[in-house]
Amino acid sequence: MSPTDPNALASNLSGMSKHDASTPIAELGRRSKAASRALATASTEQKNHALHAAADRLVVSSDAVLSANAVDVTRAEADGVSSTVVDRLRLDEKRIASMAGGLRQVASLADPVGEIIDGWVRPNGLRISRVRVPLGVIAIIYENRPNVTSDAAGLCLKAGNAAFLRGSSGAIDSNIAIETVLRSAITEASLPADSVILVADTSREAAVEFMRQRDTIDCLIPRGGPSLIASILENATVPYVIDGDGNCHVYVDVDADLEMAIQIIVNAKMQRPSVCNAAETLLVHRDVAGEFLSRAVSALAGVELRADQRALEFLPGATLATEEDWSTEFLDLTLAVGIVDDLDAAVEHIARNGSGHSEAIVTRSLEAADRFTHEVDAAAVLVNASTRFVDGEEFGFGAEIGISTQKLHARGPMGLRELTTAKFIVRGQGQTRG
Amino acid sequence: MSPTDPNALASNLSGMSKHDASTPIAELGRRSKAASRALATASTEQKNHALHAAADRLVVSSDAVLSANAVDVTRAEADGVSSTVVDRLRLDEKRIASMAGGLRQVASLADPVGEIIDGWVRPNGLRISRVRVPLGVIAIIYENRPNVTSDAAGLCLKAGNAAFLRGSSGAIDSNIAIETVLRSAITEASLPADSVILVADTSREAAVEFMRQRDTIDCLIPRGGPSLIASILENATVPYVIDGDGNCHVYVDVDADLEMAIQIIVNAKMQRPSVCNAAETLLVHRDVAGEFLSRAVSALAGVELRADQRALEFLPGATLATEEDWSTEFLDLTLAVGIVDDLDAAVEHIARNGSGHSEAIVTRSLEAADRFTHEVDAAAVLVNASTRFVDGEEFGFGAEIGISTQKLHARGPMGLRELTTAKFIVRGQGQTRG
Repeated sequence: MSPTDPNALASNLSGMSKHDASTPIAELGRRSKAASRALATASTEQKNHALHAAADRLVVSSDAVLSANAVDVTRAEADGVSSTVVDRLRLDEKRIASMAGGLRQVASLADPVGEIIDGWVRPNGLRISRVRVPLGVIAIIYENRPNVTSDAAGLCLKAGNAAFLRGSSGAIDSNIAIETVLRSAITEASLPADSVILVADTSREAAVEFMRQRDTIDCLIPRGGPSLIASILENATVPYVIDGDGNCHVYVDVDADLEMAIQIIVNAKMQRPSVCNAAETLLVHRDVAGEFLSRAVSALAGVELRADQRALEFLPGATLATEEDWSTEFLDLTLAVGIVDDLDAAVEHIARNGSGHSEAIVTRSLEAADRFTHEVDAAAVLVNASTRFVDGEEFGFGAEIGISTQKLHARGPMGLRELTTAKFIVRGQGQTRG
Repeated sequence: MSPTDPNALASNLSGMSKHDASTPIAELGRRSKAASRALATASTEQKNHALHAAADRLVVSSDAVLSANAVDVTRAEADGVSSTVVDRLRLDEKRIASMAGGLRQVASLADPVGEIIDGWVRPNGLRISRVRVPLGVIAIIYENRPNVTSDAAGLCLKAGNAAFLRGSSGAIDSNIAIETVLRSAITEASLPADSVILVADTSREAAVEFMRQRDTIDCLIPRGGPSLIASILENATVPYVIDGDGNCHVYVDVDADLEMAIQIIVNAKMQRPSVCNAAETLLVHRDVAGEFLSRAVSALAGVELRADQRALEFLPGATLATEEDWSTEFLDLTLAVGIVDDLDAAVEHIARNGSGHSEAIVTRSLEAADRFTHEVDAAAVLVNASTRFVDGEEFGFGAEIGISTQKLHARGPMGLRELTTAKFIVRGQGQTRG
């Protein structure tokens, strides 16, 4: 078999897949659980070996993966899927190299498993410690990006978890090809192939069944839009972490460095408007509103502004914001702009309209900074910095599996630590309870 | 109004209640959310003031609370409810004093809010810290114990959370009386009365609606049996933490101090068999089974033993265990007893049958202790100590709201820290993302 013969490789790859769409999901779950037990005690070296092997094999097998991907792309185009979606689906040598690079990057990160979180001794002599351990089986439901198959599997594996994956029907050929490469690489490190299992049945019924595998799934992380989240809220019985919307605000305080504030809102809104940590609303203290907005308007050229009555005065090209605009995550070059009387009003506006993702204040006032960080309830609160920094890479986690907007388990960017749980270890000398 | 006139006090108390069963649950949720914002920034002093005031007022109002409780007890007896349930429901001066003592105890604990969990500086100069903050609104659904109204509210309040409570219909008069006392005490500390809200509608429909208040509830903690848990898995859309079953094992290793092992299994099984951290299965290494079981049998007098084929030989009074016995949480003086070939077999048995609560090994072998603690997946793994120690008080948390058997957010005994979440605070000097 030569890597220059994609058909031979593709056929070989599908032969390596250990399951098909007819395998019951509960059975796949049991296999995933069994694999998770081996992974939980695997050494860092073994896990890194598997990640490097997976990276190498992805590159070597790129022709096969690309020919599987071509099937998905052709089908999507025939189905008249939008060019944005086709673009997300399409792989090329560069994207495969980037997936491989991601796996090597995860291999280079510190292993979170075994970290002693804290520990103490009780008056009766019991020594208690809390140790970081893998979650077990992490399930991921995701949409059309086939790179998630390798990105998510790599993160799960490094943290000692089995990855139980359910991608979309649109990317199924790509996903199976990638899963097959990963599974064979993992066995090279003497870890179970079932450390990564992709559910090949892409029906809605299978998705619902998947999110109810309470005996085997320890944590479900959805990567998708509102309809997926709604389905999880309605149907899931397994524990999950939601990666939700980001309706992020930048508040320009009366004591702001206005030039800094312009840089920050321009960056927060315009650097990458389609992502969850981009700003959606600008709030300005009334005493600096005139000067600030007059200067900001040219820096924000190209951004559609939706302003409240008072801000309209300084923003000639803006339209009047509707009530709905304040709670909308535009995800494009649109910005709601409001003038507030003081910091209290800004905090109140954010409490009413924010989604608890990332909120920024620009100020030179220590008191304003302290009050804002204390009173605003969000995963991240920033002082004099762009909301765009709220991200696993930028926080130094090395990689992220998502950004949690819920408060349980993980809040904000989720790195390897968030893919673990803790175990209490209690050491005694025969103590019994009186 | 004299405290010696319970009727006058009871009537006054119900007049102080700020809502009735007809208030929509969503409206109660909004009030709870609003209160949670005030609580999130309340000082430790204010919260402790409220807790002490609540304790004082519970004692002062005990006649009124007891007369409300008498209504519940009379109704339960008329309905033919079992004496165990009536006993849980019934309050007396001593139990009220104990509730008040519990509140004072919570006041004495360290405030978890504001703790800096960790922090670091990024190469671009951003200073990131992770600070402990309240969850917001904590919802508790609970069964017939009216003391939970005050215990849960006290813990929620100390950690800066609003308590949104839904007790059972059987305890509704007691719960309303206690809630009324708590609400008036909380206002004494200049905190919102809505810091504690009891849902007065005790219908099943209301319970389902309650567990779907996603706009207001940040965390739901159920305190009840399997049917409540099943209802939450099916219906809840809010995040929750499950306090599940405990099918706990004690494994007596070949290198065990057998006398210590007897003390531990006797304590783990017999000291309080009705609780989740009591042992349900004893596993013994085959090489010490004869000697150990022959000695243990008299120490376990009064315990019904269900043994596997090999153990039966040493346990004349035992019956043969069924397959179901291995996965059953007996919650009484019944113990399954099995003989295993080695530590691997013990670990495997626990993986197959355990509920991930608390698992103990008795051994003098460092290797066996290390392997057991490493390989057994449970909230708590104990070496040479009784499973009965897995408890918030015994771990030194001062109090507990439950013991989580799930792996997300909290695992094992949940104290005040587990009633909080974290917020990232990012401080910059004008950084923007490139």
